[in-house]
Amino acid sequence: MRVFIAGADGYLGWSLTQYLAGRGHTVVGADALLRRLWVSEMGSTSAVPIASIDDRLAAFREHCGYRLRFFTLDLRDHRALCAALAEFQPEAVVHLAECPSAPYSMIDFKHAEFVQANNVSGTLSLLFAMRDHCPEAHLVKLGTMGEYGTPNLDIPEGFFEVEYRGRRDRLPFPRQAGSWYHWSKVFDSHNVSYACQLWGLRATDIMQGVVYGLGTSTDVRLNTRLDFDQAFGTALNRFCCQAVIGQPITAYGDGTQRRGFLSLSDSMQCLGLAIENPAEPGEYRVFNQLREVLSVTELAAVVRSAGDALGLTVDIEQLDNPRLEASSHHYRPDSEHLRDLGFRPSAPIEEEVRDMIRGLLPHRNRIHRYADQLMPTVRWRQSPSVPEETR
Amino acid sequence: MRVFIAGADGYLGWSLTQYLAGRGHTVVGADALLRRLWVSEMGSTSAVPIASIDDRLAAFREHCGYRLRFFTLDLRDHRALCAALAEFQPEAVVHLAECPSAPYSMIDFKHAEFVQANNVSGTLSLLFAMRDHCPEAHLVKLGTMGEYGTPNLDIPEGFFEVEYRGRRDRLPFPRQAGSWYHWSKVFDSHNVSYACQLWGLRATDIMQGVVYGLGTSTDVRLNTRLDFDQAFGTALNRFCCQAVIGQPITAYGDGTQRRGFLSLSDSMQCLGLAIENPAEPGEYRVFNQLREVLSVTELAAVVRSAGDALGLTVDIEQLDNPRLEASSHHYRPDSEHLRDLGFRPSAPIEEEVRDMIRGLLPHRNRIHRYADQLMPTVRWRQSPSVPEETR
Repeated sequence: MRVFIAGADGYLGWSLTQYLAGRGHTVVGADALLRRLWVSEMGSTSAVPIASIDDRLAAFREHCGYRLRFFTLDLRDHRALCAALAEFQPEAVVHLAECPSAPYSMIDFKHAEFVQANNVSGTLSLLFAMRDHCPEAHLVKLGTMGEYGTPNLDIPEGFFEVEYRGRRDRLPFPRQAGSWYHWSKVFDSHNVSYACQLWGLRATDIMQGVVYGLGTSTDVRLNTRLDFDQAFGTALNRFCCQAVIGQPITAYGDGTQRRGFLSLSDSMQCLGLAIENPAEPGEYRVFNQLREVLSVTELAAVVRSAGDALGLTVDIEQLDNPRLEASSHHYRPDSEHLRDLGFRPSAPIEEEVRDMIRGLLPHRNRIHRYADQLMPTVRWRQSPSVPEETR
Repeated sequence: MRVFIAGADGYLGWSLTQYLAGRGHTVVGADALLRRLWVSEMGSTSAVPIASIDDRLAAFREHCGYRLRFFTLDLRDHRALCAALAEFQPEAVVHLAECPSAPYSMIDFKHAEFVQANNVSGTLSLLFAMRDHCPEAHLVKLGTMGEYGTPNLDIPEGFFEVEYRGRRDRLPFPRQAGSWYHWSKVFDSHNVSYACQLWGLRATDIMQGVVYGLGTSTDVRLNTRLDFDQAFGTALNRFCCQAVIGQPITAYGDGTQRRGFLSLSDSMQCLGLAIENPAEPGEYRVFNQLREVLSVTELAAVVRSAGDALGLTVDIEQLDNPRLEASSHHYRPDSEHLRDLGFRPSAPIEEEVRDMIRGLLPHRNRIHRYADQLMPTVRWRQSPSVPEETR
């Protein structure tokens, strides 16, 4: 299948590029390379050294058997995007090209506005470009389980049958996001859904849980990134980096907040299934993509026991929750659609975490140098930050 | 009360400025004057001649008793907005400063992207500016009934109690907008709601029906605009302009689609009630603001009979619906909150429409000159418009 991956230089994107090539697909990549800049802006770097895009492309050619066509482009550059899609004529378009950080969006107005405008405009540009240049292609867009928030109801996959005052309808499940970033993902989900209704585009919107884990590669140039800073590092990846350098695991709040998780390799398997089993023309379907639900406390315990097994001493420290989120809440998301398509989780989380810690040990010094960036300084309810000039 | 009106040069904004001044409030206005440009871009003009902003301000001073402070500013200019709010210290902020046209957003990618980015960034800028400079002020933001779409359920005011698989919660009512513009209003509603939760701002979000009617003023410089072009003219205002120039009323589709309506003077009364009865700190409340629900066919009949009474011949022509919207659907929106605050509709629609047609007759030639712009050329499901260069 001809697959266009927007965001091909990112954590998921660079893994997916290789995963799909390994399954015989013809992949084209696009990326504005902004993730590298955002992580530098946070004063951090990838725990695993990553190659420049040129070196990545050279290694891809050596190992994957063909030259990967790569476009350095921002989705907001509508003309360049149209030209790329018109040339490649993809059968599937994977959209991983958004700014993916809640804390980054909570820094200040400038960052909130950037994240929302960037994500909304980029997605809208992609939808119009697909309408005009590859209307038959299947869009696989990455959303997040965070779009739903934590309602006191089970969470269906995107839609639910509801009865109200004696009448029934099938409606979009209400979204209650918890950061400016998460709201931007809600906005994009709405826009994708509307494009399917309006133009008959076909799309799968993936409400993904928190992804953890290292990629595996024989050539270091094929490594995917692994971030651990407060903005771009996800919970479990951060915890493993802390275990590796002997920093206590920083669990936010009372640790009872529960989320869906899945490993990087499970994420690849799921995205592959979505791509290889496209939606029908005009169909907008939502997949909740997660393997299991765990509380932050359970997560920390998994890391501690994996650390113990490897001879590391892992302490756990409860921090005031910098975020605004519910504790001790109901959390039972459906995730049947991907299982129906054949998703079979690979290794259990304990094993993945052990492998991750083992894989991170050689990079201990590198992580240590940026250890300060593991600590949360961005607070959801910070006191208003008023620049001097406008006070 | 000290009231800051963003969008003070618009159809509602200029009326509200005078209405609130008349009720003894101290008003400050802000506007980037873009509506004037957008209507020119559509090749049209206001049916009622309107004065320049300078002449408007001079007339306001003569008739309303004080000098209206006016900021020519775009909400997206965050620094200028912060300075204005810091200086004025409003007790209420009314947000009417969005691009308000569904057809305008459906022209092409550029317009869709502009409308969404403009509305989302402007609203976000306003929220942060309020957090930093007047966190106690009450935000009254204009949304639209179009955010809800036409579900097969009654439409509550923003939230509903729902039972699902044996559990209950109070959730935001799902939004199903019908244009890129309407979605932008949904996004803004989400952002306003989140700012209340996050920072304890207080807000009233007005889901307004379609407004019709002429403003009344003794001095022509105080006239508010009345648009009739396909993009910025609302249904009933367009129909009355058609009646005045003897052009058949263009009813879209089979005319069974139903919407909420209210007159300009009822809108002023409602906005005044919301402003004078502020939400509590941290409260995000939603008012459905409409007087009555009518189908397009019923609307056209009202205009025809008012026209008859004034000696005009009014034909009705069914046009292919350029929009994508349901016909013969359920439509029963709640609108109790404003009635509970004391909203009492003024004149019945028949009377308002008669007054409007009478008031438009002197401008017959002016409307006639722009009659072409009454016809819809923007189609929701147009064939893809691919610029030559990227084909």
